Amino acid sequence: MAHTAWRTAVLESLANNKSLPYAKYVQLATVRPDGKPACRTVVFRGFLNETDTIQFVTDNRSRKVEEIAKNPSAEVAWYLPNSREQYRMSGTLQVVNDEEKDPFLAQARRDMWARQSEGAQAQYAWPEPGLPRDINPDAFSPTPEQVAAMGPVVPAFALLLFTVAEVDHVLLRENRRIVYERVQDGNNGSDVWSCAEVNP
Amino acid sequence: MAHTAWRTAVLESLANNKSLPYAKYVQLATVRPDGKPACRTVVFRGFLNETDTIQFVTDNRSRKVEEIAKNPSAEVAWYLPNSREQYRMSGTLQVVNDEEKDPFLAQARRDMWARQSEGAQAQYAWPEPGLPRDINPDAFSPTPEQVAAMGPVVPAFALLLFTVAEVDHVLLRENRRIVYERVQDGNNGSDVWSCAEVNP
Repeated sequence: MAHTAWRTAVLESLANNKSLPYAKYVQLATVRPDGKPACRTVVFRGFLNETDTIQFVTDNRSRKVEEIAKNPSAEVAWYLPNSREQYRMSGTLQVVNDEEKDPFLAQARRDMWARQSEGAQAQYAWPEPGLPRDINPDAFSPTPEQVAAMGPVVPAFALLLFTVAEVDHVLLRENRRIVYERVQDGNNGSDVWSCAEVNP
Repeated sequence: MAHTAWRTAVLESLANNKSLPYAKYVQLATVRPDGKPACRTVVFRGFLNETDTIQFVTDNRSRKVEEIAKNPSAEVAWYLPNSREQYRMSGTLQVVNDEEKDPFLAQARRDMWARQSEGAQAQYAWPEPGLPRDINPDAFSPTPEQVAAMGPVVPAFALLLFTVAEVDHVLLRENRRIVYERVQDGNNGSDVWSCAEVNP
């Protein structure tokens, strides 16, 4: 399967910024049930296998999960400091949590869990995010045994899949801006994309 | 006038990240007229005088100006790499453009224009952003004389004022999260803010 041009561009940009661990940090915007925007930093976790679907992870108890249930539309802003580029990607999000019925997606969630460090896994066993601070300091340092006792994957761990419909790529150094749009869903897994140079 | 605790925290965070020019780059989310989120990188341009109002600049021809006219709600996500902190700030945006009637705000726009470099000023004389690429390369390199001929401030230059109502500050290194909320508009220019420690 041929990859889209924007996927290739993203992987090249990442390679050009690999000295900065935080070059993988992107900002993900969604819309709250009250119609106001929400925006937070998440970590790019690669593409789902050989597809163009972008992976993030989230705590299933976070507000974004609720927001996505009501409005799955999202836009990512991704600034890469070394190469001075910005990607804006708009599309839709899907939450893959403990209740996932699709065996392929449930497996993708287990695979992503297995890639998390012990410290990252432990965070899903922490008290519910956003509630008043738990005064028990041990609540934030569960042992690996305590984490494992919560199941093969801690229930609060969710995989977030982002299906991209449009990419707006600004290259500040070259004063260029390229817009990719999915114009047709492929029937063999490879979508058709348009690509245009626009004014920065 | 006393400053809010979150303003002090932001300025301290900036000082702790001053080796990185892009620590001033933040992501600004708004909602499009079709109800989908938009998110892009903008540069923090300081506070408006001694207030807690945050300043950005924008091209008045950009889509965000339209979006703000229909829905002024916004959220900023600001990740500071050196200190490993994130601020999320929600509030409302106001566009101060060439048609501004308030003399104080019109002056703030002129002041901000004067702070822009020659190269940054020239961008507001470029062809309209997002349209098909102008094939005339000179269109992207106006002379300072050409820029000056467009007026004391190029009409496309707009100041963006962000009035913050809630700040969610995550300190990853210390495993802390502090939420500030404006609970009352002050009648002497100093609002009342609540402050709470919550679970990260």
